[in-house]
Amino acid sequence: MPKIKIGLIQTIVENKKEDNLYKVAQLIDKICMENVDMVILPEMFFCPYNTDNFPTYAEKENEYSYKFLSNIAKKNNIYLIAGSMPEKENNKIYNTSYVFNRKGEKIAKHRKIHLFDINIKGKQTFKESDTLSAGNEVTIFDSEFGKIGLCICYDFRFPELARLMVDKGAKVIIVPASFNTTTGPAHWHLMFKSRAVDNQIYTIGCSPARNYNSSYTSYGHSLIVSPFGELLCELDDKEGLITYEINLEYIDKVRKELPLLKHRRNDLYELIKK
Amino acid sequence: MPKIKIGLIQTIVENKKEDNLYKVAQLIDKICMENVDMVILPEMFFCPYNTDNFPTYAEKENEYSYKFLSNIAKKNNIYLIAGSMPEKENNKIYNTSYVFNRKGEKIAKHRKIHLFDINIKGKQTFKESDTLSAGNEVTIFDSEFGKIGLCICYDFRFPELARLMVDKGAKVIIVPASFNTTTGPAHWHLMFKSRAVDNQIYTIGCSPARNYNSSYTSYGHSLIVSPFGELLCELDDKEGLITYEINLEYIDKVRKELPLLKHRRNDLYELIKK
Repeated sequence: MPKIKIGLIQTIVENKKEDNLYKVAQLIDKICMENVDMVILPEMFFCPYNTDNFPTYAEKENEYSYKFLSNIAKKNNIYLIAGSMPEKENNKIYNTSYVFNRKGEKIAKHRKIHLFDINIKGKQTFKESDTLSAGNEVTIFDSEFGKIGLCICYDFRFPELARLMVDKGAKVIIVPASFNTTTGPAHWHLMFKSRAVDNQIYTIGCSPARNYNSSYTSYGHSLIVSPFGELLCELDDKEGLITYEINLEYIDKVRKELPLLKHRRNDLYELIKK
Repeated sequence: MPKIKIGLIQTIVENKKEDNLYKVAQLIDKICMENVDMVILPEMFFCPYNTDNFPTYAEKENEYSYKFLSNIAKKNNIYLIAGSMPEKENNKIYNTSYVFNRKGEKIAKHRKIHLFDINIKGKQTFKESDTLSAGNEVTIFDSEFGKIGLCICYDFRFPELARLMVDKGAKVIIVPASFNTTTGPAHWHLMFKSRAVDNQIYTIGCSPARNYNSSYTSYGHSLIVSPFGELLCELDDKEGLITYEINLEYIDKVRKELPLLKHRRNDLYELIKK
């Protein structure tokens, strides 16, 4: 099936985990009235983005929030890309995204593989590695629409990762993400557009809404970009919903007219997955 | 020396080869009054961009135009990135860029390695491979300012090539290029900004000016982009000159604050030069 109706949910992250889960559940009910196939939530949508919070909010796979989200997917008959949450396993914490199918079954799980440690003087500092560990897997999942790549925020900064996903057949890359008010205006649209154009795929980013009362202010601007780099839909910086139907057949047209993937000089260079 | 004063020359390409060479010589004299260190010319600056023209305008290395340009570099005491020209060798034609140092000595030569064969219906078609052959080398050259990468137009579409240059130490990538009025508005700024941000380098594009009387209308908009993605200077679509002094020390600052190159997961993936 070449068409996917996507729903993006961009929320302000509240302090109480449960408040976030119930808010998201209500918004998913609302967005499903538009007959969406797939709903995407933001990075760390129930845990204010702060290294101290990650261990406190973390859960093991299959615990409360996981089951809550699985049930929502099943109840609404949607694919749910459940943003990300802090995941606990063997005394380590990961930044993890689960994907549930229309039956509520887990069909993918991505642990952020590039941790976000930056220090832009006078503007933005953050060090995920203070409390988080990195995953080690490139994540692609199968769906009734074909293969879809999944990564989290800073992962998408690295062109190698998108290329590996595309080489494995991904025609869409979904990125729960939380850029900030320094890196967002500078690089958010640029990253989603350039990965889309270079790889001739749809790219989709889902961010928390801006919250000036938090220690880390997310950029917002959840968006969908076409394989030719067109901005198809976008939210502003506030809490909100948006839906858009993408057509995967457009990818074939773009790749035929401007055959970038075919024109790579694989005799001169090669990107290898170890 | 961390600072390089760059001069970009964006010309309308005339039909007669000699007219282009003399125009460029005059403009280089003019731009050198601003004490530039390095001058960059557009792709195919003396040959209207058309597959039929490439064999007709082609010269062997060391022939007339090569010597003409070498002399200009020496006379003006500049590095000259001599755009590109059709180069003839052993019954093949290449799209070739020569680089001359302040003494007029050739210090680099790049033959375009990705040939531009596109067919965007009703908008833009072109097939370089009808008359051109592809080079097979990644090109980096040493200068008094450090290492500089060089490629031509469509080459820069491929993120692998920029990465290979950066892995070899390039802190600037220079791209004589001729996007058109379809791909230009869609992707020109995006490409120069995203390669700059992903690799934390300066990127420099030098295009012919727009000529509505030619079969292929170049986009223009020669530009310099910073390692954080800032557009530092830009021409419009008309014939013109622009100078800008870049500071290579800014690269170190950007890479320290947002350590993208260091954060690559080389244990999970690797780009290999064959």
